[in-house]
Amino acid sequence: MNIPQSVIWENDTIQLLDQRKLPHVTEYLTLESVPSVFDAIKSLAVRGAPAIGIAAAFGIALSALRHETNDIHELKELVLMDSGYLSQSRPTAVNLFWALNRMNDVVVRSNAAETLRENVLAEALAIQAEDAEVCRSIGEHALELFQEGDRVMTICNAGSIATAKYGTALAPFFLAKERGIDISVFACETRPVFQGARLTTWELMQAGVDVTLIADSMAAHTMKTKNISAVITGADRIAANGAAANKIGTFGLAVLAKSFGIPFYIAAPLSTFDLDTPNGDAIPIEERDPAEITHVNGLNVAPDGVKVFNPAFDVAPAEFITGIVTEKGVIKPDAAAIAALFE
Amino acid sequence: MNIPQSVIWENDTIQLLDQRKLPHVTEYLTLESVPSVFDAIKSLAVRGAPAIGIAAAFGIALSALRHETNDIHELKELVLMDSGYLSQSRPTAVNLFWALNRMNDVVVRSNAAETLRENVLAEALAIQAEDAEVCRSIGEHALELFQEGDRVMTICNAGSIATAKYGTALAPFFLAKERGIDISVFACETRPVFQGARLTTWELMQAGVDVTLIADSMAAHTMKTKNISAVITGADRIAANGAAANKIGTFGLAVLAKSFGIPFYIAAPLSTFDLDTPNGDAIPIEERDPAEITHVNGLNVAPDGVKVFNPAFDVAPAEFITGIVTEKGVIKPDAAAIAALFE
Repeated sequence: MNIPQSVIWENDTIQLLDQRKLPHVTEYLTLESVPSVFDAIKSLAVRGAPAIGIAAAFGIALSALRHETNDIHELKELVLMDSGYLSQSRPTAVNLFWALNRMNDVVVRSNAAETLRENVLAEALAIQAEDAEVCRSIGEHALELFQEGDRVMTICNAGSIATAKYGTALAPFFLAKERGIDISVFACETRPVFQGARLTTWELMQAGVDVTLIADSMAAHTMKTKNISAVITGADRIAANGAAANKIGTFGLAVLAKSFGIPFYIAAPLSTFDLDTPNGDAIPIEERDPAEITHVNGLNVAPDGVKVFNPAFDVAPAEFITGIVTEKGVIKPDAAAIAALFE
Repeated sequence: MNIPQSVIWENDTIQLLDQRKLPHVTEYLTLESVPSVFDAIKSLAVRGAPAIGIAAAFGIALSALRHETNDIHELKELVLMDSGYLSQSRPTAVNLFWALNRMNDVVVRSNAAETLRENVLAEALAIQAEDAEVCRSIGEHALELFQEGDRVMTICNAGSIATAKYGTALAPFFLAKERGIDISVFACETRPVFQGARLTTWELMQAGVDVTLIADSMAAHTMKTKNISAVITGADRIAANGAAANKIGTFGLAVLAKSFGIPFYIAAPLSTFDLDTPNGDAIPIEERDPAEITHVNGLNVAPDGVKVFNPAFDVAPAEFITGIVTEKGVIKPDAAAIAALFE
């Protein structure tokens, strides 16, 4: 089974899936230098917070390999400078900073040039392996919620190519396929950027998972007429009270699911929880360029000068969430369960 | 105030708004012959059931004018042949057949060539005027449901250019503007064909009505954060028990509105009710070409060969509808109220 991966370390290079060309062209870029990693992150060839962090971590491994000095002090300085440079590729990407800080610690602790090179590569591989393991665990716990023959709806791309492997919301579908359990997926196209149409369908089709594409507006009719069993989505941030911010459209799916009596699940690693955010109202919602709504494939679908509201995320309040699937199991979306998770 | 109209009779020609070019180009085609009317209907230059019927009715007026014979028998035969020809321009358009049958009756009843020409033109103008009056009445009744400062959501284009004038769901906004009542409209873009983005925004902007475009997936977040006061949509068919079929996405808006405690209204003329259809389950739902979902502006946004579910309509059950706005007033969506309407 082919579960696509966005970042692969091979022959001392990064093989990076160019997500800008999906779903029409499956092309891996060969990154051999730090600037090429910077450009790949900045130009969105790689997307998804964990995948970006992993690409940056391997960027540090490339840095240590490419600088030929065997003076440990000089090498540390050169690699740390590259790390500072890479940290500016996506200024608001928390996972990027987290991964680079973890790499920097390894750089600082190394005592010789050769061990530094070994250590940073081992650390990057560890970051990737840990993320894959977290995603696989999420998938295992999520799969327990589903049964043979279920029809599950999702939105956006909380998928393998956004992480090390497996993804979060999509992880149970890959595991089900591995085990011969038939689950059908209904993917909302995810306007305005079409991550569902472009990425989720492609990813699941690569692995042979049964997937049907719908427009976002078809969710209610599809839930009713196709007997949808459950909804599962990723999350960008989960507040201390269980409210979950995710791609715009998620809140609407949660409301519909509740109305139809269908369980609605969020799949996300512990790193997505932000205990300093008390509730959904405290999560800032980014509003993006109106052109994302007014233009599709470069052509205008709306009148010039039309007013646009383009929120990138919405928040599903805890009362609409049946359960949150983490690498430690499925929890109820309430403050006590979330606090217990971190004790 | 400029309320756009799609069909205008002028100097013995039809001035037809070319809706295919909206919103970028506002161009009226001059139709001087029956074949040009046929082509305009077939090629979707005119859309909206009432507008198609009106265009066809004026097509019969053109037919009677262009055939120069003064032999009443020959003229009747020629005009009825043109009517049969026009009836094949959109094979499933009920309004088209209704309008042509009404014109045929006038043709058959006429006793001289000159009176036939006068009668068919008078009948076409009457069909248009009656539709405008129905729409205006719907608008009057709908406007009583709204207040200064309201923010109302709609989907698709139940608008002036789909009818003789005013439209159905959009009628109250034009009347409010005429009277200086400020109502803001939030228009869902209406995937897959973007009637909301292309037509509703354009139409309301022409009249100076405040309108904001959103993607369909943003409805829930917009209802909550923009304090939406009500939702109003058109309908393609209303069953005897009050269930309403309309553009895909309508059902979802109705469920969301109920969850948020927001009234959800259907605006439609009596001709939309089908008392032979007992309930929503009896309304057939057309499934359209997958390419509407996979291709936008001619470019593919999804993998080749992806499975697609593309229902063109959905059905809002009566329990989700606060009221149905007709030219005779606002009624509850139940069998007794609907039956009473037709007594």
